[in-house]
This record gives sequence, structure tokens and C-alpha cells, in this order.
Amino acid sequence: MVAVIRPETSQERIDHLITWLKDKGLDVHISVGAFQVVLGLIGDTSQIDVDMLRSLDIVESVAQLSDPFKACNRKFHPEDSIIETLDSAIGGGHFAVIAGPCSVETKTQITFVAEEVKKAGATHLRGGAFKPRTSPYDFQGLGAEGLDLLLEAKKVTGLPIVTEIMDIRSLALFEHVDIIQVGARNTQNYDLLKELGKTGKPILLKRGLAGTIKELLMSAEYIMASGNEQIILCERGIRTYESTYTRNTLDISAVPVLKKLTHLPVVVDPSHATGKAELVASMAYASVAAGADGIMIEVHNDPSCALCDGPQSLTPVQFAPIVEKMHKIREAIK
Amino acid sequence: MVAVIRPETSQERIDHLITWLKDKGLDVHISVGAFQVVLGLIGDTSQIDVDMLRSLDIVESVAQLSDPFKACNRKFHPEDSIIETLDSAIGGGHFAVIAGPCSVETKTQITFVAEEVKKAGATHLRGGAFKPRTSPYDFQGLGAEGLDLLLEAKKVTGLPIVTEIMDIRSLALFEHVDIIQVGARNTQNYDLLKELGKTGKPILLKRGLAGTIKELLMSAEYIMASGNEQIILCERGIRTYESTYTRNTLDISAVPVLKKLTHLPVVVDPSHATGKAELVASMAYASVAAGADGIMIEVHNDPSCALCDGPQSLTPVQFAPIVEKMHKIREAIK
Amino acid sequence: MVAVIRPETSQERIDHLITWLKDKGLDVHISVGAFQVVLGLIGDTSQIDVDMLRSLDIVESVAQLSDPFKACNRKFHPEDSIIETLDSAIGGGHFAVIAGPCSVETKTQITFVAEEVKKAGATHLRGGAFKPRTSPYDFQGLGAEGLDLLLEAKKVTGLPIVTEIMDIRSLALFEHVDIIQVGARNTQNYDLLKELGKTGKPILLKRGLAGTIKELLMSAEYIMASGNEQIILCERGIRTYESTYTRNTLDISAVPVLKKLTHLPVVVDPSHATGKAELVASMAYASVAAGADGIMIEVHNDPSCALCDGPQSLTPVQFAPIVEKMHKIREAIK
Amino acid sequence: MVAVIRPETSQERIDHLITWLKDKGLDVHISVGAFQVVLGLIGDTSQIDVDMLRSLDIVESVAQLSDPFKACNRKFHPEDSIIETLDSAIGGGHFAVIAGPCSVETKTQITFVAEEVKKAGATHLRGGAFKPRTSPYDFQGLGAEGLDLLLEAKKVTGLPIVTEIMDIRSLALFEHVDIIQVGARNTQNYDLLKELGKTGKPILLKRGLAGTIKELLMSAEYIMASGNEQIILCERGIRTYESTYTRNTLDISAVPVLKKLTHLPVVVDPSHATGKAELVASMAYASVAAGADGIMIEVHNDPSCALCDGPQSLTPVQFAPIVEKMHKIREAIK
Repeated sequence: MVAVIRPETSQERIDHLITWLKDKGLDVHISVGAFQVVLGLIGDTSQIDVDMLRSLDIVESVAQLSDPFKACNRKFHPEDSIIETLDSAIGGGHFAVIAGPCSVETKTQITFVAEEVKKAGATHLRGGAFKPRTSPYDFQGLGAEGLDLLLEAKKVTGLPIVTEIMDIRSLALFEHVDIIQVGARNTQNYDLLKELGKTGKPILLKRGLAGTIKELLMSAEYIMASGNEQIILCERGIRTYESTYTRNTLDISAVPVLKKLTHLPVVVDPSHATGKAELVASMAYASVAAGADGIMIEVHNDPSCALCDGPQSLTPVQFAPIVEKMHKIREAIK
Repeated sequence: MVAVIRPETSQERIDHLITWLKDKGLDVHISVGAFQVVLGLIGDTSQIDVDMLRSLDIVESVAQLSDPFKACNRKFHPEDSIIETLDSAIGGGHFAVIAGPCSVETKTQITFVAEEVKKAGATHLRGGAFKPRTSPYDFQGLGAEGLDLLLEAKKVTGLPIVTEIMDIRSLALFEHVDIIQVGARNTQNYDLLKELGKTGKPILLKRGLAGTIKELLMSAEYIMASGNEQIILCERGIRTYESTYTRNTLDISAVPVLKKLTHLPVVVDPSHATGKAELVASMAYASVAAGADGIMIEVHNDPSCALCDGPQSLTPVQFAPIVEKMHKIREAIK
Repeated sequence: MVAVIRPETSQERIDHLITWLKDKGLDVHISVGAFQVVLGLIGDTSQIDVDMLRSLDIVESVAQLSDPFKACNRKFHPEDSIIETLDSAIGGGHFAVIAGPCSVETKTQITFVAEEVKKAGATHLRGGAFKPRTSPYDFQGLGAEGLDLLLEAKKVTGLPIVTEIMDIRSLALFEHVDIIQVGARNTQNYDLLKELGKTGKPILLKRGLAGTIKELLMSAEYIMASGNEQIILCERGIRTYESTYTRNTLDISAVPVLKKLTHLPVVVDPSHATGKAELVASMAYASVAAGADGIMIEVHNDPSCALCDGPQSLTPVQFAPIVEKMHKIREAIK
Repeated sequence: MVAVIRPETSQERIDHLITWLKDKGLDVHISVGAFQVVLGLIGDTSQIDVDMLRSLDIVESVAQLSDPFKACNRKFHPEDSIIETLDSAIGGGHFAVIAGPCSVETKTQITFVAEEVKKAGATHLRGGAFKPRTSPYDFQGLGAEGLDLLLEAKKVTGLPIVTEIMDIRSLALFEHVDIIQVGARNTQNYDLLKELGKTGKPILLKRGLAGTIKELLMSAEYIMASGNEQIILCERGIRTYESTYTRNTLDISAVPVLKKLTHLPVVVDPSHATGKAELVASMAYASVAAGADGIMIEVHNDPSCALCDGPQSLTPVQFAPIVEKMHKIREAIK
């Protein structure tokens, strides 16, 4: 880390800062230039709060020579991580198509959808049992019963399942879940992340509602620092001022940025990002073209009842050709 | 709730929608205009997902005649709520000055600061024991030990204490805490909110990092729907594109907006919003002038060691005249 | 347009509003429901300021049954518009590859780049003569001389040229320019748009720095209302809170949204959006996959001097295979 | 300026960069640390594009030791600038109350409002003659006739007038206007700014729709670099994701930030920021408490016709006590 001191800072204040830094166990290399002093900090700088250092009135700027994320950093782990579950894999050239309904409703529904998306080329089944709803008066999901129904669909199709956890106290219920999802409202629920870090389960970690790329990586780091390296990152749209025509703004540039910074696989959820079924296909194509390792799409069973399932779901019939085109795009950018 | 149907929608699709709405237990009042159909939905519309309804391709727009928040709605509870703890109160004309260090460090530190801020006019003592940090490698707070130190400072000064909970499993430790804070990263941690709703404790609920005003109210609603009506709302700055000169953008207009929508007291945290000590005073004055029921300010003991405490803290000496001026502004706007 | 009146509004105030609306020449269809009054406004509602109507205290909500944009609306002009210049075309299945340096520097430079990008498959040459710079002390472009150099490059290669106008008083200089660009800082410079509407020139209109999709269409509408229908819309990234790893956030979902709302062609500028050469290729691919009618890419002549040209430029050697892949992706999504 | 080079950069590339910097006329002070090279750039660094330098792949970070704005920088001009017109002044302890209707409509209207706001304590009269409207089909203002009406109101009341220019070609019409306003859509219309810099007129420069504080200062710099130092900066709300309850988010923290960075006076426009009359008073108080040099408020003549004037206007009767309270707050924070 390098800290540039403001011009005209008194030597006394500089010395005070140096003493404090040394007390933290760092070596400090002092470079006195023609008109400024630059401090090079050597050692374990992870104990230094960069934002704090940066805002000190005697500090002009701070350059971090090392990223704040270590375990998920591609620099120290150049090969792609591959997350394997049953016969499916994500990352390192393995492309995931994660599909299924927003909410698990009935055994017939989830099994039917599971079979349909499998036929269409899905590699994983998704479905919500615990649902984070903005209103306490809205349907909160089937809970434990929903998990049971998902497991039945897994048994029938052989597809690994992805479903969201909201409360760490329900972790025991997720024993046979293949990939545990952390939703956008819990991306910075650090105690949840720490506990998930103690499991051996793959975690699908969504970017926060208005989370930065760096915050997403730091949240992954929480899980990894607790011992679990099986993480899939998920871009799902960010909150911007543009909310008339799309619910969120899908930040597709996050895909190549993340692929460069980390070895973890990156998937995209165009359904939640746009909130509109009619935009899902083009955003899925764009994400694949940008290099995503997988796509997560909402598919619901019954077109005539699409009403109850929200406007962002596709039918199995609409879903199948999208999978085909995604594979063609993957060929095109090879 | 009123739903305006798009022109040229087939009668069949309109009928389908009406049937579905009636299945939800609603009466539907149909108004056929010269060039559009408008559906008036009568009954308990809280079961309807407005966003879903709004995005249906046959629906032009939806007007909610009733707010989605009930318990915290000023319409049904016109008088200000007052949150009382020990000898202090917030709301209904009672102005709170909540002050203290970002983190509890030592017994000497927290007791000293508590005494100093009390002398300067603080009504509540704040201090962090469990700290949400972006990096798993940063100091995570003293935890249970920090809570003990806070309770000692409470004993010495008689000030009620405010401190943050991060994990519902540590709730038992908060037995003697006067006001439990929910931080900006947990504003939509619904399972945490539900549990806090079962306690009889006052809750200070911070607005999310990039949370809307409506989301803040809906999170309060989660707590209230579980039985706890003692909630203080806290504006603490929102995430915007402007982050060069301030950490967040303090949304002071949220104060009069919230005061109109809800009977719950509204306090402002200018320290976290700006991230800079030099802006705290003017933003505190502005918040008071806008009608806030209280201000939450970081104050640290030792100016010469302000280094370790971050650039957003004030010293007790800087803090005292700010309290005075806030009271003068309250007089001015009466 | 439909206005839903708030419950419990006095008849007098409703009558007052109706009188005012009728004075504007509108017919008002009044629908009295069980618990609300809905006004249907019939006639030329373009004279009504919707935002004003919406914010009246007696109005619950306003639904616009017709879009505020007319001339550029696909509803009234279902076929794609095609913008033709020399031998090149954009829209209606014609894919444009607009390439060239950020700034025109010398005759050798611009001619060399023009020849190189033509060889690589570019259909249009871009280059800046008048440069909008945040600082008055930065290089402001070669101005009229730069336009001359561009025209020479056009003569040599036969490529139509695209270049930015900043001041309407310099319009005469653009006589032989094929497509006049309006930059992101002038998207809402309405007097400039009105004047450009009086020319017969194709206009490439960039989305504002933090402009909404609707504002972009309304700005196009300004040009069209003045008589010029030859407009190309350009997505170039929007301002969001995420600015660490990308300069702007490229809103690729704007492509399918715009393609649905308007018949005008839509191109994407990944160079300005990301500000980083290393992200240009993947964002170009994503934009093509999302259905863009063209891509605008910065290409600079001399890799060894890329220094002076900014980090978002590619070399001709890097550019050529990108064009190839874009065409492959177009095949894949057919 | 200080540039920190990335570790492990080849000496050849560093030398290449140094040569290029020296070619720009700079002295380069090279500091070779234990694990990094830091370049100190000495001389006129205003020719260096910092963003470009920062994004070079061999550059870790760049610290600007000097701000990019010079003429408006408080460092080089510590005393407050005071903008005087007729008997009114803004800045340096002079508090401005700028009031009047959004649009000039008739002679009776503007003269009546002018007299009323003067009685209530206004120091300047505002009124729009040229109106920037999102839609080309909306009322565009009375234009030259509106300016004439404003001048009549000036004659009657003696109040200096503030009104917006949209097209530099109409500058001659502004000869007797006291303060020329540049609206939020033209904040980065650099050619307009340059021309206004050649006039001797005070300019009220609004922050862009989603403009940064730095961009506002750089736009002021454009005017000043052309010779005109009489500038008033105006905060008017910024575009954020929160647009349900307020039109924009008023960034009140911009007031103390600007007051520290520049000697130019800073006023706030709470009417446009919030878009709601009911929020204007509290936001005006907050702005004054934060240290604003003036407030700009929309006041319309006829409450019974407030309909036509938009929901953000106050009546003279509502306006008068607000002025009084603003002065009381100024006393309170002294």
C-alpha cells in the first residue's frame, strides 16, 4: 500500500502517522520527493482500514497495490474454479443453464417444470421455498415443504437443485440441497455468510440490490475465509435511476470484470434483472456473449396461469429455443 | 386498488384477469370507458402483488389507493409515536441526541465518552460491539465483551444505550440494551426483523444502503406485523453516483416525507452519511431544520488518537456546541 | 390519459379540475366507482403536463394510454427505419460498424486509421474534431481543420463520416459530413436539436450522461418534430454508483427496450461506456447479441503511442477479429 | 501530480511513460521504493488527462495534489466572492431570496408576483421566458415577450431579475437581465459557457441533472477561463433511484462541500429539487442551516389557479413566513 501525504503537512503529524502504522506491525518506507512525501507500507496491510487512511486530512491519496480480496483473487489462483454437483458443473468451460419457477407451488408443478427444463437443456433446477418479499403481508413461500417438493423433483430428474436460504437457523433443512443461494438482500448479511463458510456446500451468491463489484467479492471472501471455496457469483441487475422500462439495470460489464478479477464462476440472472419476460432472451444472449459461465432463468409450467407467476417467467416452450441459441453464441465467440 | 387495462385488450383476457382477482377474494368493479376499461379492486388487496399486476401485458397501470404499509401509516394513527427508554424519549416533540463512538474499545474509553456526551446534552449513548465490516479481515468489534462495557457506561451515566445486532442468535445478549439497532446491511433481513418484532424492545431501523423510503417503511412493517410497535427510523445517506466528496448522499428530504407518511420518529445519522467529521455539524443542523426527531453522531474520546477511530468522529469538545446550535434551530423553526 | 382521483376528494375540487381540463380542449369521461372517481381524458392530451397532473394533491395516479413520443413511436411506424449514407446503411437488417479515433490528430493518422478499419470491415468512419472536455484547459479538438482532415479520409476510403457538433453556429462546416453526432452532454440541448431538425442530415443522438430511455426518445422527437426523421439512437453507458471498474454502466437492456418502442436504429458505443480497451470486445459482442443495429468503436493507429489516445482505444489489429465475431453472433441469434 | 506505477512493470515501459510526460513539458521526479516506483510530476500538469493516465495498465493510481479547478478554487482566493446587482448581493454574508413564478405568463401576473415577493422579503425576481421542456409539444415559454414582461416587473419593483438562457444566439435579448441562468440541461454546454464567459453578466449556474460537484466547478471554470468571474452556483437536486416521493434528491451536503472548495456563492433551489410545494419549506430551512448563501423558490400568484402552475409553487401567503424563518435559522447558526 502506498500513501501520498498532502503537501505542507507538518513533520510532527507525519511522524505520528508513521508511528501508528508501525504499531500495526508494518514496515514504512519513506520517500521524500521534491514536493511531497510518499509512504510505502510493507507487510500485512489487511489490518489497515483503507477508507479511514484515505480520509485522514493529511493523506492526499492511498494506492492499494494489492486487492482487498485474497482467496477469490485470480492473481493467486489463475485457473478457473469449477463447481461440480451431481453430473453438472459450472465454470472452467462448463456452461450452466439453471431454470425453474420463482416459487415452488405444488408437487405436480415443480416436477413438471423440472422435466420440461431438463428436456430443453437445463443443467440445474431452481425454485424458491423461502421467499424474501418486500411486504410482510405477501406470500412468504412454502418453506420446509417447498424444499421437500424440490427434492422430489431432483429425484425424478436427477437435476441438482438451487434454492435460497434466508435464515441461518434453517440450515439443517438444506442438507440435500445441492447449491444454496444467498439472495440480493442478504449479500452483506455477514453472519449468514460466515456460517455458510463452515458448510461444504456450493453457494450461489447474488450481487446486492445496489452492491458494488468489490462488495460482491468481499462477501465471497467472507465465505471463503470461513473455509468454503465453492462459490458461484451471480449478477442480477443493479438499482439505478432508470426504472420505467426495466426493474433493474443488468450490469453485463460486470461479467468480464469479474472473470478477470476472480477465478470463481459468474452466472447471470436476466429474469430478476429485467422483471419482464420479453427481455429475458436478449439479456441471456448478451450475457453469454459477454462470457458468462451460466444463466439462471425463471420458467413456469402453465402459460394460462402465468398470471400468478409474475411477468418475468417464460414457458418451457419459450425456454427451449433460448437454450439452443445460447449454445450457438458460445460457439460464435470461441 | 385501480387497474387500467390497455386499449384493444381482448374481452377474453380481461375476463381471465377478473376471474383470477375474484379467486383472490376481491370484488371487482368494472368501468367501461370510451376507450379503456378500468377495474376497481375492492377488499383485502394486500394479497395482490402490485408489481406483478402492473407488469402484466394487458395492464396499462395500477393505482394503489391504499399504501402497502398499514401499522406504521400515519393515516391510521395520526399522533406521533413516542419511544421512551429510561428518562429519554424520541418523537412527539422529544428530541434525541444519540452520541458515542463508532466502536466500543475499552472500559475507560466508553465510560469517558459517555460522561462527556452526557454533559454536552446527549440523551442516548451509542457504541458498536458487533461491527459489520466489508472485509472479513477487518476488526469485527468486541462482541459480547463490548456489550458489557456499554452496560457499565449505562450504569455510570444513566444514559439508555443503542447498539447494533447482526445475528439473531445473539439476541439474548441484548437483554439490557435499551434500543437495538438494525444496520443498513440488514434492513431487508426479514427473518431478523420478524424475530425483533417478537421482542418488546425499541428498534432503531436504518435505511438500506440504497434503500427506498417505501422499503424502509415496509421493513418497519415487518417488525410491527410481528407485534412490536416501538420503532425509530434512521436516515443515514443513500448510495448515489456522487462519492468523491461524500461517502453517501444524505437524503434530508426523506425526513419530511417520512414524517408525513408515518407516525414513527425519524432520526438522522450525519456521521455515516458523509463519512467526514467536517461535514457532520452542517448536516446535523440541516436535518434538525428539516424536522428530524433526533440526531445520531459519532463522538470519540481522544483527539490525538482520532486516527484509529476514523475521520467521521468528533471530539467531545467539538460536539458540545453542535448540540447547542441544534436546539437553537429547533426554536427557530417552531 | 386516465386520472384516478383520490378517495374523499370534494366534488367542488373535482369539478374545478374537470373545468380546467375542458378548457384545454379535452373531453372528460367521468367514471364514478364504488370508492373512487376516474377521469378519462379524450382528445389531444399532448398539451397536458403529466407530471404536473400526477402531483396534484387530489390525483392518486395518472395512466398515459398513449406514449408522449409520436414521430419515433413504432406503433405508428411499425417498419424499421433505415438510415442510408453513401454505400452504407443502418437499421432494418443493415448492421453498422462505426470505427475510428477519438480525436482527429493529423492527416496521416486519420487516413491510415480509415483505411485500416475499412479493411477490417468498418462501414463508417468516426473521429472527433470538436471535443467536449470537462476542463477548459484540456485539448478541445482541431475544430474546422479536423473536419477537413476527416473529409480527406472520406475521399480516400469512400467511408461515410460521423463526427460531433457542439455549437449550432458551426453547422455550415458540417455540409459534407454524412452523419452529425450529438454528444451525451447535449442530448437535451433543445435549441441545437431543433436546428438539426431543419437539416436533411442523419443525426446520431447519444443518450445523456444519466438520461432515461424516455428522455432519449423525447430528444429524438425534438429533431423529428422539426422535420428530420433520419435519426440513429446511441446507448453509451449511464452514470451509476459503480464507477470503480467501469467508467459508466453500459445499459444493454436499453437495446431491446428501444427496438420495441421505436422504429429508429439503435447502436451501442462500448468504448465510451466502459472507458477500458480490455472490455470493448465483450461489450460489443453482448450488444450485438442483444439486437443492436450497429457498434461504434474507438480505433487508433499506433499501438506504441496508444498512450496519447486513451485507454479505451483498440489497434486495427485488435479490431479486425472483433468485427468477424460480431458477424458470427449476428448469425447465431437469427 | 503523483503517479504510482504497478509492481513488476518493465523498466522499458516506465521509461516510455517518462519520455512521454517529459515531452509534455513536465519534470518527472522518480522515486524507487522497495516494491514500487512513484513518479512525481512537476510543472503545468493541467495538460495531462488524469483519467487517461489513471487507466493506463502500468499505472496503479494517480494522486492529484492540485485540484483541476483554478479560478474558482478557494485556495487561491480565500475570501468569499460577492455578486452584486442593483441593490442586492449574494455571498460573503449577503443572503439572497430569489423568488417568482416558473413561467412568465402575463404582465399582470409577473408584476403582481414581483410586488408580493418583494414585500415578503425577496431580494431577486425569477421567472422563465425560455423554458426547457422534455417534450417538443409542451409550452416552450413566451420567449422574447416574456423577457419584456420581466423587465417591466423589474422597473416596477426595483428587483434584479434572474432568467434562463437556452440558446447563445439569443444573448442580445438578455442585455437588461441582471443574472443569466444556465439550466441543468446546459451545465455542460461548453460553447454556451464560453460565450457567457465573454459577457460581464453574473451567471447563475445550475448543477447538471446528474452532475458531480467537480463537474459543476469545472463548468464554472469554463466561464471564468473566458473572463467572467461573476458566478453563482446552484444545487437543484440530483437524479437518484429514489423518485417515488421526490422528483430528485436534494444534495444538501453539496452546500458545505462547495463552500469549502470554492469562493463562489452557493444557492439552493428546493422547488425543482423536490417537485412538491409541501416539501419546499423544510428543504429551504435545511439548506439555510447547511450554510447556503441564498434560496431560489417558485412562487405563483393565484392559489385558485395553482393548477396551471405546477405542484411545486407556493403562494405569496405561504412564502412570507418561510422567508422569516430562514432569517431566524441564519441567526441560530451564527
